[in-house]
Amino acid sequence: MPEVVFGKGKTPEQVSAIVKTLLATSQNVLVTRADQEVAERLRGENPESGMEHFPASGAVRFWRDRTERGKGKIAVVCAGTSDLPVAEEAQVTAEVMGNQVDAIHDVGVAGIHRLMQNRQRLTEARVVIVCAGMEGALPSVIGGLVSAPVIAVPTSVGYGASFHGLAALLGMLNSCASNVTVVNIDNGFGAGYAASLMNRL
Amino acid sequence: MPEVVFGKGKTPEQVSAIVKTLLATSQNVLVTRADQEVAERLRGENPESGMEHFPASGAVRFWRDRTERGKGKIAVVCAGTSDLPVAEEAQVTAEVMGNQVDAIHDVGVAGIHRLMQNRQRLTEARVVIVCAGMEGALPSVIGGLVSAPVIAVPTSVGYGASFHGLAALLGMLNSCASNVTVVNIDNGFGAGYAASLMNRL
Amino acid sequence: MPEVVFGKGKTPEQVSAIVKTLLATSQNVLVTRADQEVAERLRGENPESGMEHFPASGAVRFWRDRTERGKGKIAVVCAGTSDLPVAEEAQVTAEVMGNQVDAIHDVGVAGIHRLMQNRQRLTEARVVIVCAGMEGALPSVIGGLVSAPVIAVPTSVGYGASFHGLAALLGMLNSCASNVTVVNIDNGFGAGYAASLMNRL
Amino acid sequence: MPEVVFGKGKTPEQVSAIVKTLLATSQNVLVTRADQEVAERLRGENPESGMEHFPASGAVRFWRDRTERGKGKIAVVCAGTSDLPVAEEAQVTAEVMGNQVDAIHDVGVAGIHRLMQNRQRLTEARVVIVCAGMEGALPSVIGGLVSAPVIAVPTSVGYGASFHGLAALLGMLNSCASNVTVVNIDNGFGAGYAASLMNRL
Amino acid sequence: MPEVVFGKGKTPEQVSAIVKTLLATSQNVLVTRADQEVAERLRGENPESGMEHFPASGAVRFWRDRTERGKGKIAVVCAGTSDLPVAEEAQVTAEVMGNQVDAIHDVGVAGIHRLMQNRQRLTEARVVIVCAGMEGALPSVIGGLVSAPVIAVPTSVGYGASFHGLAALLGMLNSCASNVTVVNIDNGFGAGYAASLMNRL
Amino acid sequence: MPEVVFGKGKTPEQVSAIVKTLLATSQNVLVTRADQEVAERLRGENPESGMEHFPASGAVRFWRDRTERGKGKIAVVCAGTSDLPVAEEAQVTAEVMGNQVDAIHDVGVAGIHRLMQNRQRLTEARVVIVCAGMEGALPSVIGGLVSAPVIAVPTSVGYGASFHGLAALLGMLNSCASNVTVVNIDNGFGAGYAASLMNRL
Amino acid sequence: MPEVVFGKGKTPEQVSAIVKTLLATSQNVLVTRADQEVAERLRGENPESGMEHFPASGAVRFWRDRTERGKGKIAVVCAGTSDLPVAEEAQVTAEVMGNQVDAIHDVGVAGIHRLMQNRQRLTEARVVIVCAGMEGALPSVIGGLVSAPVIAVPTSVGYGASFHGLAALLGMLNSCASNVTVVNIDNGFGAGYAASLMNRL
Amino acid sequence: MPEVVFGKGKTPEQVSAIVKTLLATSQNVLVTRADQEVAERLRGENPESGMEHFPASGAVRFWRDRTERGKGKIAVVCAGTSDLPVAEEAQVTAEVMGNQVDAIHDVGVAGIHRLMQNRQRLTEARVVIVCAGMEGALPSVIGGLVSAPVIAVPTSVGYGASFHGLAALLGMLNSCASNVTVVNIDNGFGAGYAASLMNRL
Repeated sequence: MPEVVFGKGKTPEQVSAIVKTLLATSQNVLVTRADQEVAERLRGENPESGMEHFPASGAVRFWRDRTERGKGKIAVVCAGTSDLPVAEEAQVTAEVMGNQVDAIHDVGVAGIHRLMQNRQRLTEARVVIVCAGMEGALPSVIGGLVSAPVIAVPTSVGYGASFHGLAALLGMLNSCASNVTVVNIDNGFGAGYAASLMNRL
Repeated sequence: MPEVVFGKGKTPEQVSAIVKTLLATSQNVLVTRADQEVAERLRGENPESGMEHFPASGAVRFWRDRTERGKGKIAVVCAGTSDLPVAEEAQVTAEVMGNQVDAIHDVGVAGIHRLMQNRQRLTEARVVIVCAGMEGALPSVIGGLVSAPVIAVPTSVGYGASFHGLAALLGMLNSCASNVTVVNIDNGFGAGYAASLMNRL
Repeated sequence: MPEVVFGKGKTPEQVSAIVKTLLATSQNVLVTRADQEVAERLRGENPESGMEHFPASGAVRFWRDRTERGKGKIAVVCAGTSDLPVAEEAQVTAEVMGNQVDAIHDVGVAGIHRLMQNRQRLTEARVVIVCAGMEGALPSVIGGLVSAPVIAVPTSVGYGASFHGLAALLGMLNSCASNVTVVNIDNGFGAGYAASLMNRL
Repeated sequence: MPEVVFGKGKTPEQVSAIVKTLLATSQNVLVTRADQEVAERLRGENPESGMEHFPASGAVRFWRDRTERGKGKIAVVCAGTSDLPVAEEAQVTAEVMGNQVDAIHDVGVAGIHRLMQNRQRLTEARVVIVCAGMEGALPSVIGGLVSAPVIAVPTSVGYGASFHGLAALLGMLNSCASNVTVVNIDNGFGAGYAASLMNRL
Repeated sequence: MPEVVFGKGKTPEQVSAIVKTLLATSQNVLVTRADQEVAERLRGENPESGMEHFPASGAVRFWRDRTERGKGKIAVVCAGTSDLPVAEEAQVTAEVMGNQVDAIHDVGVAGIHRLMQNRQRLTEARVVIVCAGMEGALPSVIGGLVSAPVIAVPTSVGYGASFHGLAALLGMLNSCASNVTVVNIDNGFGAGYAASLMNRL
Repeated sequence: MPEVVFGKGKTPEQVSAIVKTLLATSQNVLVTRADQEVAERLRGENPESGMEHFPASGAVRFWRDRTERGKGKIAVVCAGTSDLPVAEEAQVTAEVMGNQVDAIHDVGVAGIHRLMQNRQRLTEARVVIVCAGMEGALPSVIGGLVSAPVIAVPTSVGYGASFHGLAALLGMLNSCASNVTVVNIDNGFGAGYAASLMNRL
Repeated sequence: MPEVVFGKGKTPEQVSAIVKTLLATSQNVLVTRADQEVAERLRGENPESGMEHFPASGAVRFWRDRTERGKGKIAVVCAGTSDLPVAEEAQVTAEVMGNQVDAIHDVGVAGIHRLMQNRQRLTEARVVIVCAGMEGALPSVIGGLVSAPVIAVPTSVGYGASFHGLAALLGMLNSCASNVTVVNIDNGFGAGYAASLMNRL
Repeated sequence: MPEVVFGKGKTPEQVSAIVKTLLATSQNVLVTRADQEVAERLRGENPESGMEHFPASGAVRFWRDRTERGKGKIAVVCAGTSDLPVAEEAQVTAEVMGNQVDAIHDVGVAGIHRLMQNRQRLTEARVVIVCAGMEGALPSVIGGLVSAPVIAVPTSVGYGASFHGLAALLGMLNSCASNVTVVNIDNGFGAGYAASLMNRL
């Protein structure tokens, strides 16, 4: 397991100190929701670490032990461009936990054909993560297409009656597809983490 | 236009009196959400009226002027068996307002193939009404398949975090399909009425 | 149909790239919710395009094919000055989709006479869009005055117990006028789009 | 001031005992939300009291001192038949507090002409009580027609997204008419009481 | 009646233009929720107008006709220092509508003695406005002390489970004092306006 | 400590079996929220136990060890008659845990004088429990009168915008009196239990 | 995969007909949320089927093909007696899908020792289902004890501010344990189904 | 008792003036939620006062009378680093009111062993304050480990479905541990204050 630091609400000093300690004992360290300042500081302090920075999601990854631990692929699917940061967080997490990820983007339910064209890739995945905002309908449709476990991640993408992801969250909790379980709004990390555990089974 | 009585919360005496008055001047009268007692009383009092009773939705219909007024078909689609009462209310309303209705049932999003098999019927409709509970995802998928106006009716079908139809309502309001407009939870009548106006355009 | 880009949450680079692609194949392109920077960049990059910018709503419009496609007028009504950006988005959308728009502004329900003075214009419209915040009562009153379909757009105008448009949204969903359907809070685009489909019927 | 007993949640014995005590010292006693059993018991125990029973609202009234205390008329307006019990509670309260009441029923906003026909009566009232469920739009319209204080009473009439009167309550709190104040859902008594105080000014 | 402009969400240009028009025909003009920039512009443009600016509430007042129109005093009470801006808006409104205002500040329910010391002033008022945030309990206590109409104004003062004034709003709507009616959160203007109408009765 | 059984949602058989087991080892056993059938069964099965039944709250008490364990009195205060069942549950709990209880009933905030008359008793209590529904204002007022810890119990008494006790709960959580802590809606037991622990300090 | 019928809201006739059809082609059929009448009818109509009926959850199971399909045990844990019906639904589902279930009951977080005594059994499970109402804290504690995927099922057990399971649902969605995913309130079936898919991996 | 100033929403001038007055008559003064500017101004104006500033919580403390008034220790426990500001406010408050505080940090429920290692310290406390965000489960676990009163402080730490502390608040109100009472979200001050009163008992 990698060590994980939830970066939001911590000062650059705090994150820096925690990461320093963790890098001393762990091969792989993941910082989520780090802002630009934190990322730059970490890069400056760890010049030879091979650190990766993913600005869209704010993830910072020290991925030194790349042993594959998952037994198959994890598909990370998202509905629209705006859901990409959450999908990225899920992918970065799943990878650092030793999984191959198949990223399938921009396959919203209102354009069902694009989704159907990716059906083969979906059915080949051992676990499927689906990130969607607005009405959050995508996990139900995908849940009906695959027999793998589906982890639904509501995103805060939307406006008005999306209520910052509440609409998508409720939609996913009420999914008529029985293979769908749900994590918190925008919790790409949690989805990637849980999917990784499933892929090790 | 037919005369319409919202039956819920009215006593049999009240409904009976109103219907009597309306039948004197209107060819077509629709009572929605009438319970069994009201329906039986109305049948007893109007023996030769050709009155129809639809127990699932509680609709009572006096449909004497059957002039066709719509310019095409209205499709009434529902996701599951439990959504049938709402779909029935929409259909009964659309018919009494002079429309042909194509009823397409049991085409939930978790079984996308059954929906795709009905694609032809959907695209032939001039207006599409979609009734769905739980996550309320069906209007988004259908909205992407047709270019007709889609009226989404959230139903109170579900439990737990469906919050009596709130989840479906929010989902539909946040639909990523731009041709979707929404009516109140379980408001099959309103959907049938608005669709009829559109079909007269 | 025009191509549409939802500008919010996209970088100027992203919007610029998408618009460039779309302009290559489509006569008409609409960007909604673009900020000042995006609008200026688009103008700079498309100097001869006849691009229009609507700062109140953030709409950017490339309207090169002005073929009329609607069969009548669409009325776009709003209750107060603060609702104008949403009304503007609806109008800009309806126009670029080939409709004549009759804009009727500042006719709130607390001054019913001003509304009644516009009754003729309202009844002449084939479809009516009504934008209102605060208590969101205007669609019900207008719905009772016309027999055309009415699309209600709750706006986030208000404070306190308006809860960012929730009060208006709930009011419109519970409208006692049967010809009213509803779209998401501030969704002028969706109203304009759906109205355009209806006006082509 | 009359003595008032809130009957809901009290046993017939409790209400009976309280009323007995109050009738010994007060000319006028009002019991609100009494069920049939309570009403019958009170009638049986007070055979010569001139007790009135209003089954729709559950009010029971002992109105022995009929001195007029209000300086003008209080209009009690309601939008639909289903709002009548709340309007009745308001009227019964206002009367027992010494006011003349002008009851104006069934003047919903979707039929604005019926409301306008009653404009004269509305403007003659010194205080106006408006009871409405569903979208609760009526107080805003009436507030714009009169310069008297308007007390808005949201009713729990409706279904689905009315959320038991919440939609009407929010609508009234956000009224764009400045002369509107609001009481609790279904609180006809409170409206009648407050209006009576105003009418004594 | 003064002319009133709701300043929030309008540009300085818009407010300036509206005020200019109104000042041409009305003696008294009130702008609510104007920011510093708007206030300064108005002062610059109307140097001899006797314009007053109230920075806490953002009110700007042109009070040229000071005829007294109310028949008694209006008490404006507030619970804590943070509620002062809302109380100020109520007072400024009541004054410009021709009322004498008795301002009673800082009398929260947790220090009931300070409130009781002001009892005489409260009972002398013809109408009482009570502004309170947090638990919003003050109107109930004052409602029990006076027989005048009480207008309760929930304020958005508080944090956490105050939910921006919702807790106070709900508390006031459920007041066990029957002479309390309620306006929107932070709506000092509405309270001052309605109280003025009552004080003219 | 007594043994406690939460009776709601358990069958008479289940409660009977649990109570039998507990009575074998504990002197004092308390069953909360038992319905009539459960209470009668327990009485029949434990004829010599001195069992007490409190129908208003549904409490059943086997109080055989009456050792006093509290160091002072616990005051249990309630606002209105309808709050009595919750107050009773608190009192029964505090007593069976070895405390003297001073019950002070019917002292709502709208009649502040009755409350002030009981001030001496309030200040003599070592811990104060306050049960109130509707606006839930009583704990704030009492909190300002005493320096003892105050445990506030919101009750589900009310209607409309009380939302089954939510209004009282929010009011109490936002209390401006710093000595107030809160338990769940209608949780008289929890208040009695926590107060007992405090009274042992 | 077994065939599954959601029994709630279907008439005995409807369930009977569906089950008849399914039994003709499937070895295993599961009906969830069937009431007593439905269960008796099914038993009468399928006398030799080995049908099992689980009254607490309302499950009816035809389990004829008992092939083991899971690769390890699924632990089904619940916090209190009242959560048992939901745990039962999860267990019945997991079993009919070919899994061994280890049922661990009555291990609430307020008695952490009982939970710790079962730690061995928890760590031996390949997937863990945790059912809990009220504060819904159990999945977080168990999530920290095991490295298997944890499926959290909020139950509607509780009262007052549990809001029919909402408190537990929100708690689980915000779990600080990263291996927790969540299903709808009371959705024991969904948890059992998803766990079965994971156990086949 | 110290004098307390709630700093939020007050200008530096206002806080400065109030503090000046209070320091003239009180040994101990506590300002909560003061920003950097306020703290610096107070330090500049009170150079010899021994003023302490706690930037995480914004507390400013003048602690001149250090008499011990509590009869035992108050434990202040928090779940994670992000909860520290709220725990600090509780500690600073409890100390200035004359209590010894035992601060136990970073003992979240997902790492139950760290919590169990601190069990001795917990059981030695006379009152326990527990600050936790996200799912807010910690008070229930600690409530089961100690027999002292537990004051639960939900914090606004979290994202998505934590809804700014609502999830933690609801969890704590529904705690299955009977010795838990709750204060407002982030209300470290209130918890410290109430705990101090209990520790004086």
